Amino acid sequence: MTTRYALLLEYDGRGFVGWQRQLNGLSIQEVLEAAASNLADGAPVAAAIAGRTDAGVHAEGQVAMIALPKDLPPHRVAQALNFHMKPYPVVVQSACVAPADWHPRFDALRRRYRYVILNRSARPALETGRVWHVPHALEASAMAEGAKHLVGRHDFTSFRAASCQAKSPVRTLDRLDVRRDGMHIIIEAEARSFLHHQVRNMVGTLKLVGDGIWEPIRVARALQAHSRAAAGPTAPPDGLTFISVDYDPPLFPRAG
Amino acid sequence: MTTRYALLLEYDGRGFVGWQRQLNGLSIQEVLEAAASNLADGAPVAAAIAGRTDAGVHAEGQVAMIALPKDLPPHRVAQALNFHMKPYPVVVQSACVAPADWHPRFDALRRRYRYVILNRSARPALETGRVWHVPHALEASAMAEGAKHLVGRHDFTSFRAASCQAKSPVRTLDRLDVRRDGMHIIIEAEARSFLHHQVRNMVGTLKLVGDGIWEPIRVARALQAHSRAAAGPTAPPDGLTFISVDYDPPLFPRAG
Repeated sequence: MTTRYALLLEYDGRGFVGWQRQLNGLSIQEVLEAAASNLADGAPVAAAIAGRTDAGVHAEGQVAMIALPKDLPPHRVAQALNFHMKPYPVVVQSACVAPADWHPRFDALRRRYRYVILNRSARPALETGRVWHVPHALEASAMAEGAKHLVGRHDFTSFRAASCQAKSPVRTLDRLDVRRDGMHIIIEAEARSFLHHQVRNMVGTLKLVGDGIWEPIRVARALQAHSRAAAGPTAPPDGLTFISVDYDPPLFPRAG
Repeated sequence: MTTRYALLLEYDGRGFVGWQRQLNGLSIQEVLEAAASNLADGAPVAAAIAGRTDAGVHAEGQVAMIALPKDLPPHRVAQALNFHMKPYPVVVQSACVAPADWHPRFDALRRRYRYVILNRSARPALETGRVWHVPHALEASAMAEGAKHLVGRHDFTSFRAASCQAKSPVRTLDRLDVRRDGMHIIIEAEARSFLHHQVRNMVGTLKLVGDGIWEPIRVARALQAHSRAAAGPTAPPDGLTFISVDYDPPLFPRAG
């Protein structure tokens, strides 16, 4: 008998090679699967994920799935996984029995990412590893104007990593908001799915607009060029956090 | 010739014995004074502070003062101090020439602290060292009701550390707000000055109310008892951040 569990994860991406197992370092997948193996009498357990994250990228509301060869109450699964993951900055916030045929990646209806720029001359002391530090003043309103050109259904080839394995470069970006909150510039992106590095490449491009190096309209031209070389550089992973993912019906109640 | 500078500091209190120099470990004062000594040709420099913080307590907008035996532009002082403090999570966000006779502690008109409780079963992964983790559900509205009894001018003996060196236990607490924001309970305190451990002792007491162990009115009785034993335990330092301090005229523009 096998029971499939959906897990709401939070993790700090610093020190990890990313979600996915790699030969060159510790992954979040490895930490979770090793913990889950303890609940399966040592048998290997494979975890699936809603959205893979790169090295240094964080998650507040990532969703994973594991199958265990026994029927434990979900809150016991969460407690036991958290016990075994204790040395690492990875926790299960909540667990539930997964619906039949549900898959965290293929059934995701909408994903949300947040990117935070610390825009002041002094480096971060409290937010090290959690923000992109840009010491010179950025024009957030120009960045917001540039961002509008990316919203909608487009071929995002210009914002896609060379390593991206998606079959199509076409995605529908539902939201890309840029706002200033004191010393922070906060960028929120929402779509059914994203290409590899899409958010970081969009942020790296909008930063050129914030610098005044690009006019906002040049973002539209970069998009239309369908060439990675036409867009800006990839923003560092530190500022990026996977916020949440939606399913229908919802799996986890809203935080709180 | 000596020039006095006011410094707007941010620091992460983890790993420090607190603001003040101690024999048993590294203090923020020692880091700042050592950096400042580099700008004084190696001569010792003494720093004064708006509000001393204990080991593990953080600051977003602390204010310090140093005197240097030369006349440097304030932004150069900030840059040079940040260069020398680079190994540590301490930064100068801004610097200005201090007004004549100004003192960061004695001239402070109002200080603000924030205390954050992470109220969910899973330990923090992203906020380790920055929150007090309380795994069982707290009733924030009851805590807010209890907090009202502490606002105003009172003898705060019940909320004062045994080590407190203030001459009088009487303080005027201008604000003590408690609100829930998702998984977080955020407590904001505002006063001209606080007694040693006052915020942490108030939070530890309000937590008993959130637990349902105390009725909100018992906070008023604890206050009236004028005895440390009548109030709750001291909340851990992790959740506490020194937010800001006001002077007249203002020294630093609002962040942003």
